[in-house]
This record gives sequence, structure tokens and C-alpha cells, in this order.
Amino acid sequence: MVKVAVKPGTYLYPVPAVMVTCGPPDKPNIITLAWVGTVCSEPPMVGISIRPSRYSHGLVKDQGEFALNLPTTDLVRELDYCGSVSGRKVDKFAATGLTPVPAKVIETVIIAECPVNIECKMEQILPLGTHDLFLGKIVAVQVNEDILDDKGDLDLTKAKPLIYGSHRYWSLGQLLATHGYSVKS
Amino acid sequence: MVKVAVKPGTYLYPVPAVMVTCGPPDKPNIITLAWVGTVCSEPPMVGISIRPSRYSHGLVKDQGEFALNLPTTDLVRELDYCGSVSGRKVDKFAATGLTPVPAKVIETVIIAECPVNIECKMEQILPLGTHDLFLGKIVAVQVNEDILDDKGDLDLTKAKPLIYGSHRYWSLGQLLATHGYSVKS
Repeated sequence: MVKVAVKPGTYLYPVPAVMVTCGPPDKPNIITLAWVGTVCSEPPMVGISIRPSRYSHGLVKDQGEFALNLPTTDLVRELDYCGSVSGRKVDKFAATGLTPVPAKVIETVIIAECPVNIECKMEQILPLGTHDLFLGKIVAVQVNEDILDDKGDLDLTKAKPLIYGSHRYWSLGQLLATHGYSVKS
Repeated sequence: MVKVAVKPGTYLYPVPAVMVTCGPPDKPNIITLAWVGTVCSEPPMVGISIRPSRYSHGLVKDQGEFALNLPTTDLVRELDYCGSVSGRKVDKFAATGLTPVPAKVIETVIIAECPVNIECKMEQILPLGTHDLFLGKIVAVQVNEDILDDKGDLDLTKAKPLIYGSHRYWSLGQLLATHGYSVKS
């Protein structure tokens, strides 16, 4: 296979595309982010990167709290919209029809339509360049009952996850294998 | 929909599952990681989280360089194996048959069979708990010619990406939409 050198850039795929809620419950905002990942198992932590120019950057920085709301494929239009307009100009809950409900632990809202809601408290901010990396400790998680299997694990075939890669949104395909299968006898 | 509170944990999905290469070219190692993400666009940067007990933790820390090798679905067994055994005991290139080739810029190898190879230089290490977060600047990227489209973008339908979520490996499904489509007239 011929390999070609391309300009160093953000080629990693697949990545999550999530709707992050932040801001006070009476004036919440939604920002769609893809530079998002798990960074620690215990304590459970995530990292999310936001450009300093974004409205949500100030909301998260000032309040120190945010929630990740994981979309289904049915929410692709709402998710794309929340990544394309600014909360300075638009009430995104009103514009999309998404339903804000109070979070369990933090002082903002989560999105009712998303089957997984992950509440976080900010631990630190690292300025990196175009983006600041916010590291947050996961303090509460809510999951729609109908996407849990018998063991209490997520059943992704029911969760209909949205996948982001190469500037496009995709659905999940087929189950290939379970973690650790290659070394089980 | 009934939402249930679950123990705060690492529920974020989908995430990448990548084979990270590190160590000297004459004795390289592979570690499979899923706590991996893009953290900045310019400079392009990634974050990867590794437990301090892992063999690769010392290799990356000492050398300050590593590469992300993105798998195809055909490599699921090799990828799972490289996440299940230790490089202290096993030469994973020999065990899997994967082919090490010299990286372009950094002093380690990349995996020939992976269609995207992202070379990184470590910028900082953040101890978080079970995992240390390594932030790395992307200094070189190589892509298999046959997964690039006319514009030089990645064509994920040809890249056959591997997706990780809820302890399982999955293939990519259908194209849903392109970033920004919701606000185009």
C-alpha cells in the first residue's frame, strides 16, 4: 500500500459528537463538541476542548460545571445545528425543541432526548492553542432504562449512537467482538 | 423515557480504539488505547491516557514520542491482543505479524497495516488518578493513498474504521449527514 504524507492535522477517527450543556438552569446553552474523550477511569474523568471565542467557553469557565449529552442518530440535525450557531444569538433549546431538565448534581440542565447524560465538575483548564482543554470529573450519570442490558451495561444496539469522523456523521454498524476475546481460550 | 442513575463512570461512547506504537525502533512496543482524543486543532494535538503500571507508560515518558495507528475492522483481533498482553513479556509485532516501519519524524515505528499513522511529540504529562494523560503535538501524518477522496479528505467508507463502545468493537454504519448541513440553505 502506498502511504502519502499529509499536513499534520486532526485526523483521528472515530470521535464522539456530543451536545454539552452549560450555563444557569434558567438560561442554559448547548454546544456541540467532537474534541471530547475519556481521560481517566478512577476517578472517572473526561476532557473537552472549547475555543475561547465560544459563548460556552465562558459559561463553563465561570460556572465550573457542564454535562455531556450523548445523541442518538435521530438527533443528528439538532446536534449539527447546536454546533453551527452561537448561544449568544439563539436560544438553542427553543430553536431545536430539545427539552431541558434539571441535572442531578450540577447546577445546569441536561437534555431529556439524549439517552446518556454525564454530569461533570471542572478540575482544570489547559490552554493549548486554538482550543482550551477542560478536564472534568464525572459526578453523576443518568441512562435511559431501555438501553441497559441485563448486567447494567449499555446496549449500543439500542442506544443508536452517532459517530463523527472526517467532517461527517455516521451510524453504528455491526458488532465485531468483545474486549479481551483474543486471549480467552 | 425513564432515566436511571448509574454509578459515575466512563460511559462516553463511541471512542477510538487505536494501536499506539512507542519505544526504540529496534525494540518497539504496541499498546491499544481507547482513552484517546483530539484536544486541539492548531497546533494539532491529541491526548492519550495510560496507566502508570503499563510497560508503554515508561517508554512514552522516557522517549517523549509516540504514534497513533488507526485500525481497520480487519485488525480487530490484533488490536484486542495488543490491549490484553504486556510488552514486558511478549514481542507484539512478532506475535501478531503486524509490520513495523520507521516513522517519518519521530524515533519509533508505525504499523504498516494501519491506514492512518499519526506521529506525536509529547508536550506534557498530567497525573489524574488511575491514568496519566499525555498531551502530544502531531508532527507527521501518513495516510494510505486509497482512502483519500478527490479533495484529500479521508473517505471513511474505504477506511473501514473500528469503533469502540461499551466494552465491544463495532464497524461503521451508514453516512447520515455532513457537518454544517443543518444551516445550509
